[in-house]
Amino acid sequence: MDPDALTFTLHERRGAARLGTLQTSHGAVRTPAFVVVGTQAAVKGVAPDTVAAAGTQLLFANTYHLYLRPGAAIVERHGGLHRFMNWHGPILTDSGGFQVFSLGASIEHGVGKVASIFPGEAPPRLPGGNSMVRIGEEGVRFKSHIDGSLHSFSPEVSIDVQRALGADMVLAFDECTSPLHDEDYTRFSMERTHRWAERSLRAFERSAPRHGYPQALFGVVQGGAFRDLRRESAATIAAMPFDGIAIGGNLGSTLQDMYAVLDWTIPELPDAKPRHLLGIGDVPSILEAVERGVDTFDCVAPTRNARNGAAFVRRGDDGERIASFRLNLRNARFAEDLRPLEAGCDCATCRSYTRSYVRHLFKANERLAQQLVTVHNLRFMARLMEDIRTSLAEDRFAALKAALLAED
Amino acid sequence: MDPDALTFTLHERRGAARLGTLQTSHGAVRTPAFVVVGTQAAVKGVAPDTVAAAGTQLLFANTYHLYLRPGAAIVERHGGLHRFMNWHGPILTDSGGFQVFSLGASIEHGVGKVASIFPGEAPPRLPGGNSMVRIGEEGVRFKSHIDGSLHSFSPEVSIDVQRALGADMVLAFDECTSPLHDEDYTRFSMERTHRWAERSLRAFERSAPRHGYPQALFGVVQGGAFRDLRRESAATIAAMPFDGIAIGGNLGSTLQDMYAVLDWTIPELPDAKPRHLLGIGDVPSILEAVERGVDTFDCVAPTRNARNGAAFVRRGDDGERIASFRLNLRNARFAEDLRPLEAGCDCATCRSYTRSYVRHLFKANERLAQQLVTVHNLRFMARLMEDIRTSLAEDRFAALKAALLAED
Repeated sequence: MDPDALTFTLHERRGAARLGTLQTSHGAVRTPAFVVVGTQAAVKGVAPDTVAAAGTQLLFANTYHLYLRPGAAIVERHGGLHRFMNWHGPILTDSGGFQVFSLGASIEHGVGKVASIFPGEAPPRLPGGNSMVRIGEEGVRFKSHIDGSLHSFSPEVSIDVQRALGADMVLAFDECTSPLHDEDYTRFSMERTHRWAERSLRAFERSAPRHGYPQALFGVVQGGAFRDLRRESAATIAAMPFDGIAIGGNLGSTLQDMYAVLDWTIPELPDAKPRHLLGIGDVPSILEAVERGVDTFDCVAPTRNARNGAAFVRRGDDGERIASFRLNLRNARFAEDLRPLEAGCDCATCRSYTRSYVRHLFKANERLAQQLVTVHNLRFMARLMEDIRTSLAEDRFAALKAALLAED
Repeated sequence: MDPDALTFTLHERRGAARLGTLQTSHGAVRTPAFVVVGTQAAVKGVAPDTVAAAGTQLLFANTYHLYLRPGAAIVERHGGLHRFMNWHGPILTDSGGFQVFSLGASIEHGVGKVASIFPGEAPPRLPGGNSMVRIGEEGVRFKSHIDGSLHSFSPEVSIDVQRALGADMVLAFDECTSPLHDEDYTRFSMERTHRWAERSLRAFERSAPRHGYPQALFGVVQGGAFRDLRRESAATIAAMPFDGIAIGGNLGSTLQDMYAVLDWTIPELPDAKPRHLLGIGDVPSILEAVERGVDTFDCVAPTRNARNGAAFVRRGDDGERIASFRLNLRNARFAEDLRPLEAGCDCATCRSYTRSYVRHLFKANERLAQQLVTVHNLRFMARLMEDIRTSLAEDRFAALKAALLAED
């Protein structure tokens, strides 16, 4: 809505797939792009210069976490997230909605941690007996997963917090439903999310950036894994004056379900606006989603897998068997393996260390292990996206996709 | 003994204090210098390029740990420690003796973990009922602290392992006594350590470097906190053809005891050889030891304190109270403190982050916290040593020492 906040330029279209550039006041993002997650204003285990050196263009931070700890006021006093966390490239924040419903509410596990934290109120309209959260038209009341304190979030609060955090791109407040919700509840929730989208827009328009540069606002498409709801939500959000569109919520239970959600959603979206797919980052999903017209992705997979000892690789050396593009470096077979994590990788880890050394670090509980594998996994994602962009530019995306999926 | 392994040049003498340069085939070390500890072939939580950028000249690795995990053969197959861990500056390894006696034996706690691991043998001549280790003239048998497996170490084994690891400077095998040992046992042990020193020398002379560059051998002075023993040990080790001298073992129970040990030891040592004080790294001790003629120091304090949230600082801002040159960054008073960890520090952390951000990372259990404080603490040690060297060059060491100790 602020014409200076975000410019999205499409360079090529290959079927539904797009090659583009997102221009923010903190720099450009070549798309399709992978967004590295730094939930608590830190990418787990690696400093920002290392994150950037791996080819990362854009970071994702979580409003819910930062609202609770350290609090938006402290980030604002630093001059916003970029200065707080020393990342001077573009940043995207979510609205807080997803975490309110997943961490605050423990929806996925159907578990309520406390019998009733809001005495006298009706039980929530959620399956699973959840009692950490109360949703109403106004917004959400929830209990902190950190200290049990009570908080309220609404479209207005979410936008205010995201103004204080100062990301380049921010999200409208939405309710994130789960596969446990039936179609009736999902429709009810989606319609409220659309009203919250209008309120987010108004709150955003009424407020001003606080750190001397503009921000862009993305709407969020909901509707679960239901065709009619996804189409309706996509058309509704597309009709509002957002700067970009995020696809969120329940994407079904299988990859096929997710591809169906994209097939219903994307044709309803305006060609000129960037499209972000929330929380997805495995190789097959990225390839399928790029093919369907998604521009950006965020996922904790590269950092979380690194902590667990899994290095991302496209193919094994010498007929080595690779499942799901991962090598488990804790495995005894790497004890004397003097090869880099991935043949041909240009990352700082692969240039200087062996699998044997990294396995030693994991076995010895040295935290440097996580750091070295994170560097590689971030570079793996950046190289994957670079290769996807090059294949789009050269009109050979289908061949790249087939070659990559044949490896899996 | 190999004239190419180590050259030590003294540039200035100020009383007993010395300004010098240690030249190894992996580069020069300006002394007095602090040696950063990377026990398991990794400095805890930070990559080698970061360690070097903080001004670190020399690393210390532990033979006992690396012998047990990953095993010397694996390090040797990499071409030695430098290539294994991607540190291309000078490295010093200890002999394994200290950890055999402290980790294998749990001497400090006087606790034996297993009633008898060497059935049929006489109980050890150690206080505290220790039973994880058996010492004899030949060497030591001990149980791994990792998996309980049985191992034997001797001067010949230690030298062989240190040849495989390939540090620039290695130590003769010694028994490290504790404050719990009486003078009789300490003398008995010291005399055996002297015989082990002779055996270490012979084993070193009979063997050749295995990685294409020479190694230097240091002898270790023992004798506990007993004047006559320290003098005798210093004179005995000084008379052997070592390339340098390390001062090890029990240095007493107080700083005053340690200064006394140095006062007894150092006058017996040859002026031309470098002197390393094992395991000491607090600011007052370094200043007192430099004044008495020590050239190098190693200590886990910078990395261990960083893990616990303690940043090293010389002085507080605005009359801030500092105890023992440390700020505990977990403290609530830093929640909104936008200042760097230490005023005037030029480290990568102080240039880019606030105390508030680093405290946030500790409270949020982000591992980046440890990494950022480690960078600062390593730089603190490097700057301290740079200032000491400059003060020696300019003949104002006493003024620097007084100013630093007045801060504490």
